[in-house]
Amino acid sequence: MINVGIIGAGRIGKVHGESIMRYVKGATVKAVADPFMTPESEQWANSVGICEVYKDYRKILDDKEIQAVLICSSTDTHSSISLEAISAGKHIFCEKPIDHDVKKILEVKKALEGGGIKYQVGFNRRYDHNFKKAQAAVASGKIGELNVLKICSRDPAAPPVEYIKVSGGIFLDMTIHDFDMVRFMSGAEIEEVFAYGAVLVDPEIGSAGDIDTAVISMKLSNGALAVIDNCRRASYGYDQRVEAFGSLGQVAISNDTESSAVISDSSGVHAEKPLLFFLERYMDSYVAEVSEFIDCIEKDTPVKVGIDCGLLPVLIGLAAKKSLVTGAPVKTSEIAAEYGL
Amino acid sequence: MINVGIIGAGRIGKVHGESIMRYVKGATVKAVADPFMTPESEQWANSVGICEVYKDYRKILDDKEIQAVLICSSTDTHSSISLEAISAGKHIFCEKPIDHDVKKILEVKKALEGGGIKYQVGFNRRYDHNFKKAQAAVASGKIGELNVLKICSRDPAAPPVEYIKVSGGIFLDMTIHDFDMVRFMSGAEIEEVFAYGAVLVDPEIGSAGDIDTAVISMKLSNGALAVIDNCRRASYGYDQRVEAFGSLGQVAISNDTESSAVISDSSGVHAEKPLLFFLERYMDSYVAEVSEFIDCIEKDTPVKVGIDCGLLPVLIGLAAKKSLVTGAPVKTSEIAAEYGL
Amino acid sequence: MINVGIIGAGRIGKVHGESIMRYVKGATVKAVADPFMTPESEQWANSVGICEVYKDYRKILDDKEIQAVLICSSTDTHSSISLEAISAGKHIFCEKPIDHDVKKILEVKKALEGGGIKYQVGFNRRYDHNFKKAQAAVASGKIGELNVLKICSRDPAAPPVEYIKVSGGIFLDMTIHDFDMVRFMSGAEIEEVFAYGAVLVDPEIGSAGDIDTAVISMKLSNGALAVIDNCRRASYGYDQRVEAFGSLGQVAISNDTESSAVISDSSGVHAEKPLLFFLERYMDSYVAEVSEFIDCIEKDTPVKVGIDCGLLPVLIGLAAKKSLVTGAPVKTSEIAAEYGL
Amino acid sequence: MINVGIIGAGRIGKVHGESIMRYVKGATVKAVADPFMTPESEQWANSVGICEVYKDYRKILDDKEIQAVLICSSTDTHSSISLEAISAGKHIFCEKPIDHDVKKILEVKKALEGGGIKYQVGFNRRYDHNFKKAQAAVASGKIGELNVLKICSRDPAAPPVEYIKVSGGIFLDMTIHDFDMVRFMSGAEIEEVFAYGAVLVDPEIGSAGDIDTAVISMKLSNGALAVIDNCRRASYGYDQRVEAFGSLGQVAISNDTESSAVISDSSGVHAEKPLLFFLERYMDSYVAEVSEFIDCIEKDTPVKVGIDCGLLPVLIGLAAKKSLVTGAPVKTSEIAAEYGL
Repeated sequence: MINVGIIGAGRIGKVHGESIMRYVKGATVKAVADPFMTPESEQWANSVGICEVYKDYRKILDDKEIQAVLICSSTDTHSSISLEAISAGKHIFCEKPIDHDVKKILEVKKALEGGGIKYQVGFNRRYDHNFKKAQAAVASGKIGELNVLKICSRDPAAPPVEYIKVSGGIFLDMTIHDFDMVRFMSGAEIEEVFAYGAVLVDPEIGSAGDIDTAVISMKLSNGALAVIDNCRRASYGYDQRVEAFGSLGQVAISNDTESSAVISDSSGVHAEKPLLFFLERYMDSYVAEVSEFIDCIEKDTPVKVGIDCGLLPVLIGLAAKKSLVTGAPVKTSEIAAEYGL
Repeated sequence: MINVGIIGAGRIGKVHGESIMRYVKGATVKAVADPFMTPESEQWANSVGICEVYKDYRKILDDKEIQAVLICSSTDTHSSISLEAISAGKHIFCEKPIDHDVKKILEVKKALEGGGIKYQVGFNRRYDHNFKKAQAAVASGKIGELNVLKICSRDPAAPPVEYIKVSGGIFLDMTIHDFDMVRFMSGAEIEEVFAYGAVLVDPEIGSAGDIDTAVISMKLSNGALAVIDNCRRASYGYDQRVEAFGSLGQVAISNDTESSAVISDSSGVHAEKPLLFFLERYMDSYVAEVSEFIDCIEKDTPVKVGIDCGLLPVLIGLAAKKSLVTGAPVKTSEIAAEYGL
Repeated sequence: MINVGIIGAGRIGKVHGESIMRYVKGATVKAVADPFMTPESEQWANSVGICEVYKDYRKILDDKEIQAVLICSSTDTHSSISLEAISAGKHIFCEKPIDHDVKKILEVKKALEGGGIKYQVGFNRRYDHNFKKAQAAVASGKIGELNVLKICSRDPAAPPVEYIKVSGGIFLDMTIHDFDMVRFMSGAEIEEVFAYGAVLVDPEIGSAGDIDTAVISMKLSNGALAVIDNCRRASYGYDQRVEAFGSLGQVAISNDTESSAVISDSSGVHAEKPLLFFLERYMDSYVAEVSEFIDCIEKDTPVKVGIDCGLLPVLIGLAAKKSLVTGAPVKTSEIAAEYGL
Repeated sequence: MINVGIIGAGRIGKVHGESIMRYVKGATVKAVADPFMTPESEQWANSVGICEVYKDYRKILDDKEIQAVLICSSTDTHSSISLEAISAGKHIFCEKPIDHDVKKILEVKKALEGGGIKYQVGFNRRYDHNFKKAQAAVASGKIGELNVLKICSRDPAAPPVEYIKVSGGIFLDMTIHDFDMVRFMSGAEIEEVFAYGAVLVDPEIGSAGDIDTAVISMKLSNGALAVIDNCRRASYGYDQRVEAFGSLGQVAISNDTESSAVISDSSGVHAEKPLLFFLERYMDSYVAEVSEFIDCIEKDTPVKVGIDCGLLPVLIGLAAKKSLVTGAPVKTSEIAAEYGL
């Protein structure tokens, strides 16, 4: 039985806490820590059977009985807590992104070298039933050689501008999932990025120095082309689709809905909207990613979504950012070189 | 916290056991009993946190700390255990059908009179996300007055002929769910039934005195017509659909699939088959029905799927059986009258 | 070049007139006749290139240059004009139904014996792109042995009660197409019929002695079961679907729409309604059936939808009528026997 | 009655010839001319009722009874024949593209000035039932302000390399339709283009100096972003889709199929592929565009798809070409300026 500590009792920390307590047979959550631990959070911890509740995450790192930690705190603390947890010899599941600063990710990467620590990054969409099936179709050769990969990723509503300001920008905050998905779906690397951006949802997002709508085209290492389109607001809900087109055919996934009910009346034929947002849409994937993490610890096998899977989307995101500013395509290798990679 | 005892540790007993331990906040499974309790079942009980494991269900009935029982044993024991559990003052969730013999159901009904016991029957499809949405569309008047209700219900594969022989026949074993669904969807009673049956899947089913394919048409108390088509084997999986057609429109539900992936290639456009069978298809509904049962106990509110919901589909099933034999339509009231109802 | 005369310049006569003038290479419409020929109809005839316009259809029968006639007049004249046209040695395409009176159809059948006259009945749905594909899937064995055939057939709006009164009743007027479709799809004969009917659309239809909603179940000669559900009014348009379920799988067709446009907004996902009514939905099939008729004349091959295809749905319709009245299933052979068949 | 002459008796000339003879009430094709007129083409002309057949198109231009010509000859002759036809005072329907050379298009534009000549360009997709519905949804405000427009356009198979060599390249030959569609759907102008291209279908296309796969992103004058993805070969047929995403929702169209038949079997759920290629997919649109052209002549109203609709996609195509070569985004105004526009 693996004892887990969760650092950060916000929305995603609670998701993982419940997942482990309910579904992950070989693991239990021994403790949860959050500097702003509320009575409600304490109550939540008790209700799911987590006995130890702290404000200071170091109590988790100091607990010898805890083998693994889930870092679910705010992004700016991910890398430093990662370093401390590595020192404490804990296996680590870190929410994405590890950091917006490549240097800090590289410090974590360095600290991991040769240490036998499992380090998994929380790109949960790889574990979603739809994306997994699409990826399997590509990987198994069902669509032949990949030619064009298209990802549509739109949120139901823009976050508050205060969030936008510290988010690192749309490419590091939102598109980062899609960059990971391009890598996952294609089995290839993104070599060059060209980004068009616009402020069409909320002018305040523009005032905050960010964009809310983007079309990002890419060249991949396997010769294929890719394109992502993002928007911070889709009136009909969370829109998450992918189409992979190849020499032998295409695989496409559509959104999940609450039910398959279709009503036909004098005004038309009406189906349900996509599930609202990531908690509704991706709940199963949160369970699956943490289960796999625990499984890797138990069987001492390498994690599939490791430190490099955390690093590369950040490099790509920075390339996209530069492309938006310069109005020219940017090679990922150019960004990598800036960091001696 | 409600303590629950589960009687019967077969497939469905385990489904309910896990549901309660994982999802139902106000309840826990204190004990499970099965005359053929295997080491595997004991291990299962431990793994989900059920501490007490018995061969004799009377230990559950005798336990004063247990307020409610789930009767998941073989059908022929449902009514007698129900009676014992009523005597023991337990609230009861009984798997469908209560019995094939109307008299025995009526004994249970009589024993329940005035006793303050909650008695819920396991018609889980009423709690399925698709059926619920379709029912809500009908009930809310979105399709106007109901005109025609159509239910398609096909299993992926026929059960063994040994099972068929003791099943009570297709109408009491398989269609019973669909009869309940007609009542649920229409909010009306089935007044008359006409059944056509055929042996098209397996001649041995015919030799066992049963049919494997049926088309059953019905007249409802609200003037609407209904039709169910059943088959014991659908090569493409578990086919469970409903269409309700009314004066203002139609609501229809389709099957759930493992993913939304669609592959287009030179041979066509290919989507996934329906989810294989009831455990895959209806897992959420098993959680929902038991949660509601616990909720009714906690809040002392009446159950929605009570003893009459268990009784009526059996009367209808017997009417269908008689129709098949006589080749003529049969009124449900005719069957009811045979039992003094 | 086959010269055709059209008897009846109503809606369907005009459809066939335009079809032949535009699409049927080996044929031209030499004349059209209608006792109530209006100036508008004359103008229509000129506009599509039909030079001869008469009130008296006998002028067409007397024209030696005309090899074939299309009988598009009112139903009560079909059989007598058929007999006259047979005497005049014309090939005949007769709109459905030939007559409501079996005796009159039998007279036509008798007159055709040994005469070398092509006699085709206008069951156009057999030539519809969707129904044809579904039938081909059944005939080619793609779904294995047929088990259950389901036909849904609903009109967008009920015709005037005056029309209902002379229509022969829903089974001979509306369901007759569906009875033909059961025969076409299954490649088998309907042996027994059981009909439930209701008046749910318009009480005046009931006062006129008819029903407006029906569920008709059937036993087929190949052992399969079938069910048709009809309604005179579907708020969302003309609903024409079929599902054929067999030992190896199922083929289903859905309705055609004006476009594939789907709008997603905050209230849901919206697609178009089915095409409104038969002229919109089945236009291609009208062209195809007449083309095949002309082709049979040119190549002297037997018609595929001959006199028996006109006769049998009437027998089945009468069986359904009798079932509705008696409340018991009726064998088609019973009706046939009444006419010495 | 407008007399039309068709110049060019190839595939598309025949499509228009049949369309006019069959469907366009106010017009007839008086003559057809083709320098390589074959006996088969003459026979075709006779079969559809076109009496005059020439090798020399000047006979059509000289015919005072002919008011309008359809230029369906090879692309390199479009502009010069346009000029001659303008001199001859004929209304002109010219197949796309008018020319690959902007100067030649400008000559035609100049010649048209003030002359009362109707000049329509053959962008037929604007008349397709699906694209029209999507455009109407955008134009009517149903999706609010346009944010992102996505067009997927793939051919079923690459043309011969000999064709590719004289095609003007993928952007002027294939994408030109999609550039027109961006303008049509958005109601805005394309201001800047960035193109990624690849040779993934056939290396010989690369040897011929062209690409076969492309992702083209665009900035529009209304602030929206757009992206087109093209491929010369889709194994599953002709893939022509559009998604317009706006502040209030999205409209999307899918491909047409031969039928709606869906087969479910043990290997999955199978629907039909898209209609094979442009003749199958867009036949109705060819009729509609020519009907509208004839209508504009009859009623003396301006054509909707005029000379500028022919000019602008060529400028955009040249911008895309330049972007591909330079690896940088290119403003359409930059290309326009090269031609003094």
